[in-house]
Formats: sequence, C-alpha cells, structure tokens
Amino acid sequence: MLKINHELTQTLLAAIETELRQAVTRVEDPGCSHLGYMLAYHLGWEGEGAGPEAGGKHIRPVLVLLTCAAAGGAWQAALPAAATVELVHNFSLIHDDIEDNSPTRRGRSTLWKLWGVPQAINAGDALFTLAYLELGRLRETQPAELTLRAAEVLQQACLQLTRGQYLDLAYEARTDLSLEDYWPMIRGKTAALLAAATELGALIAGVEEERRAAFRRFGEHLGLAFQAQDDLLGIWGEMAITGKSTASDLLTGKKSLPVLYGLGQRSKFAQRWYRGNIQPQEIESLAAQLEAEGGRDYTRRAAEELTEQALQALEEAQPRGEAGEALTALAHQLLHRQA
Amino acid sequence: MLKINHELTQTLLAAIETELRQAVTRVEDPGCSHLGYMLAYHLGWEGEGAGPEAGGKHIRPVLVLLTCAAAGGAWQAALPAAATVELVHNFSLIHDDIEDNSPTRRGRSTLWKLWGVPQAINAGDALFTLAYLELGRLRETQPAELTLRAAEVLQQACLQLTRGQYLDLAYEARTDLSLEDYWPMIRGKTAALLAAATELGALIAGVEEERRAAFRRFGEHLGLAFQAQDDLLGIWGEMAITGKSTASDLLTGKKSLPVLYGLGQRSKFAQRWYRGNIQPQEIESLAAQLEAEGGRDYTRRAAEELTEQALQALEEAQPRGEAGEALTALAHQLLHRQA
Repeated sequence: MLKINHELTQTLLAAIETELRQAVTRVEDPGCSHLGYMLAYHLGWEGEGAGPEAGGKHIRPVLVLLTCAAAGGAWQAALPAAATVELVHNFSLIHDDIEDNSPTRRGRSTLWKLWGVPQAINAGDALFTLAYLELGRLRETQPAELTLRAAEVLQQACLQLTRGQYLDLAYEARTDLSLEDYWPMIRGKTAALLAAATELGALIAGVEEERRAAFRRFGEHLGLAFQAQDDLLGIWGEMAITGKSTASDLLTGKKSLPVLYGLGQRSKFAQRWYRGNIQPQEIESLAAQLEAEGGRDYTRRAAEELTEQALQALEEAQPRGEAGEALTALAHQLLHRQA
Repeated sequence: MLKINHELTQTLLAAIETELRQAVTRVEDPGCSHLGYMLAYHLGWEGEGAGPEAGGKHIRPVLVLLTCAAAGGAWQAALPAAATVELVHNFSLIHDDIEDNSPTRRGRSTLWKLWGVPQAINAGDALFTLAYLELGRLRETQPAELTLRAAEVLQQACLQLTRGQYLDLAYEARTDLSLEDYWPMIRGKTAALLAAATELGALIAGVEEERRAAFRRFGEHLGLAFQAQDDLLGIWGEMAITGKSTASDLLTGKKSLPVLYGLGQRSKFAQRWYRGNIQPQEIESLAAQLEAEGGRDYTRRAAEELTEQALQALEEAQPRGEAGEALTALAHQLLHRQA
C-alpha cells in the first residue's frame, strides 16, 4: 500500500494481519463456524477473490502503530488498538454497504449480496463486538486506567461514525444541500476514526496531553484532507473523467465536497444534479460545468489547506525517528496520489 | 411489570429510567437531533404510542440491580451496568426487527418501518455504542479493573447474541431441524444477556468467584426457563389458541421449543410445518396435533426443570434480604405467568 519506508511498513502490516486473525477467531464456536467465515470473507481472507488486495489498505491500523512509535512508544504495545480500529472500520463498511445498497466492494460481492441483508447486519454486529473485545487485550501490557481511556476514545469515534452516517442518509431527502452540510458528515464518516487512530497511538506511547491532542489533530485533518482529495479524484481523476467508467461520483450520487459546493451555487450544476438519473455520457460535460462553477478549485484548495494543517499539527506533535518521517511522508503521499 | 415488592421495584424502575435517558442523551449533537429522536421513539419515550407500555418491561436491568442488592451490594452502584444491559437488549431488538422483517413491536411501528432499513441499522449501531459508553460510567464508583471485567462480561454476551441470531437466521434454510438445534440458539438469543445481567450485579457487589458463578447460572437458567415458558404460551396461551389471533408462533414461523420438538418427531406436525404458509384457521388443529405428538408436555417439563435449576443456583448464590426474596419471586412468577 504505502510506498514509504517499505521495510517498516511491511513489518507493521504483517503484525496487524496476525493480530486481526487472532481477534476474529474469537467468534468461533461449535456450530457457528460459518459466521466466522463470513467475517473472514469480508476481510479478504476467504472465498472468491481472497488475497491482499481484498482486505483493503490498512491505513488506519498503520497510523495507530506509526503514531505510537513516532510518539516514542513501542508499536507492538499498540497492536490491539490498531486491530480494533481496523475492525471498527470494517464493521462500518459491512453496514454501510447494506445502507448504500452497494453490491460490490474492492471488486468483490458485498456480504449482504452473498448472504442476504439479515445475516450481513448480524455479521457486522459480531465484528463490532469483536473490535471491543480485541481492545481489552491492551490490558495485557497497559494499565487498566489507560485501557479504559482507550475504550472511550474509540466509543466516541464510533458515536461520531453513526452521526456522520445519519447525516449522509438524511441528506438523500433534501434539496437544499450546500457546503455547510459537508463537514459535519465527513468529520463523522471519515475523520473521527482517523483522529481516534492517532490519539490511540499517542495515548499508548504515554505522551502528555498537549502532544496527544496534536497527534489527534494530525489524524483528524489527515482524514479530512484524504476525503477532500478522494472527492476530487472521484470526479476529475483519470478513472472518473473518461465517461466510460461507472466510478464517477456523479453517477453514484455521492454527496462529495465538489458536489456540495456545486449544489450551494444553485446554478446549472445543481439544477441537473437534483433532477437525478445522471447518465455516463453526461459525466464529462457535467464535470466541466462543475469546474466552471468553481468546484474543482475549491476542492483542491481545501485538500491542500487541510494537508497543511495536518502537517502543522504533526510538527507540533514532535514525531520522532523513522516512524515520524513515515507519518510526514504519508500525509504528502495521500495528497499527491492520483487514484 | 413485576407484581412482587412493589415499592422496591418502582424505585428501581424509576432509577433505571433516569439512567437510560442520561445515556441516550450522549448521542445528541447539533444537526443530529433526529438520531436521538429515533432512539427515544424506540425506547417508548417519544412519538405515537409513547408511554410506559411502549418501553418494555425492563426485566434485565431490574435483574442487574436486584442481584447486586441480593449479593450484598448497593444497587445504585450497578445502575450503569443495568442501563447498559437494557441498551444492548434494545439495540438487538432494532436489528432483529429488520432481520425478521417485523413491522410492529409492543403494538407500535418498528424503527425500520418508520425511517427505512438504512437509518434503522445505523440507529441500532448508535444505541450499541451508547451502551458501551454508558458502561464506562461504572468507573465513577468502581475500580478500573472491575470496570474492564464488566466490559468483558458484556462483550462475551454480545458475541453470544450474534451467534444465536446467526443460528436463528441460518435455520430458515434447513429442513432437518430438531431439539438439538434449539438450545444453542436460545443460549445466545435469550440466556446470554440474562446471565450477563446477574453476573454483572454480583460482580459489582464484589462477591467471590463461586457465588458470582452461581448468580450467573441463576440468570442463565432463568433465561432458558423464561424462553421455554414463552414458547409454550406462544402456541397454547390464551391469545395464541383462539385461532383469531395472529400472535400464534405457528403463524409467524417461529422456531420455538415445541415446534423444534415436533419437527424432530418427523411426523404429521413436521410435514405440515415444512410445507409453510400456515393459515389462521389451521392453528387450533395444528396445535392439537403438536400436543398429541408430545410437544406441549415436553415444553412444560423443560420450563419446570429449568426453573428448578434456576432456583437451585439462586439458593447456592445465597441471596440476601428483600432483593433476594424478589429474585426468588421473580423466578416463580415468570414460570407461572399466563401471558
């Protein structure tokens, strides 16, 4: 996934994988093995299309471990927190795929598509529970008080996730959306868990309050920057602009940053978007219209400013060593990626 | 709800209500108030049909508090655990109603029926998170180590809930069900949370390992007995037998204890049940057929034996005072109820 610090990243990814598998094993019980199989399928370990690509990039758990190391801790101590964050992320993906009626994820059929909505809801609930169980493993190396703090950081992030998802779903019925509606949604859906990831890493490293808050701000702004950049690529990225691809956010109806900017202009773009049922052959001209109305510039500037804020927060957090360099590189890389 | 120890019960129920409202308030956030409203609706506080009846009987949180008091603790200390157990129960109801396609609960429209499946899944996730956040409040009066133990008791119960629900859903595709399939499902779906309720009460009271295990067994067997009795009433209770009611488990296709007993006989009852689409006018004769095959006797004996085991476990747990008497009365009452 990440091209920076190849050796360190590979070490972290391998440790995360081991920890994740151990965490998911806990669901197993005589007569109930298929529930574990569903989770293993979702995590990319089993079934058609299984393999490293199918499991996602593991950016969140890597962030937990890099932050812990960059804050002066031993990353190994943060492994349960890293696995927990990845499990929470995946629980939310299972439920999001049902809520968004998405038939595929990472090129494979989604859980609900294969096993039906009822079993998929329940499998998500099982994964959510496994995430919290896994976090309890922190206690093996950390004080009870710190383990409880970590649980609360995570629970607050989960609450924000559900608030963000609530807003996303609620926006479907609205015809007066604008930029103001974007940030509360993305703070919940994307930034909350990344903020929790860096806060957990710093918490486990044992840094003082102020540096921990700086690491948290780094994660939060990284998340916001990441989403803004993702939204930019979702309309003007190479895959999206060809018009042949179904990957364009203009086709899926995603309430992305440039789209909400455009809706707020209440001009030609907004008129067409609210009519709905946008066709592949319209994408190129509609993207051009949105660009003419300022949506592309606005989004690029937002991504740049947020990355700048992320890097500034990181500087205040005084990251150390190889892991610190990796965090800086990660922020740059996320902004300058093309896909 | 409970007719025993009226004054004590009323005090506990009022305290539980206050704690629950406080717990659910935590989801509130500017711009997101409607998510809190959905949860308040589900809990019977808001919307059409709101009122004490709409919120359920609160048996689980009362069990937590009575157990804590009967084990020699102050029930007030167990309030966060009591509220947590009730919130977990309600989270699972929100998701179960979607999974079972149930349009009503406690005489009111279900969450998914009013706000759609996506918002209902997400509201359930929010309530699940609030449950865990609430448990953290134990720390205000209890040691960190005990708070972590309580969290693990709860997480294991949640894991069992999802296993039980997995089995329930998986049974829909099977045509070879028998009694053996009943207990693993009910241990997860019903008994696990009641076992956790009494274990949490005893844990917070600070009793030693052996008595805590006895309190746990009490809760578990009470849960199993409760379910067996519920299943009996679901077919031969006054409401179910009239044939005019749609409340019969024979109409809803519920895999209850007498039904699974009957399916295991592979006789006339099983043949009719597997054909499906059972009509109201058939209920009376089908119930008589199942009774002739031994389903009613088997279920009554099971409920009696399990209640006996529950009472024996309770005796071993050496419950004290008014709360101890209330627990004994509760077990008798659950067995001898007629609806």
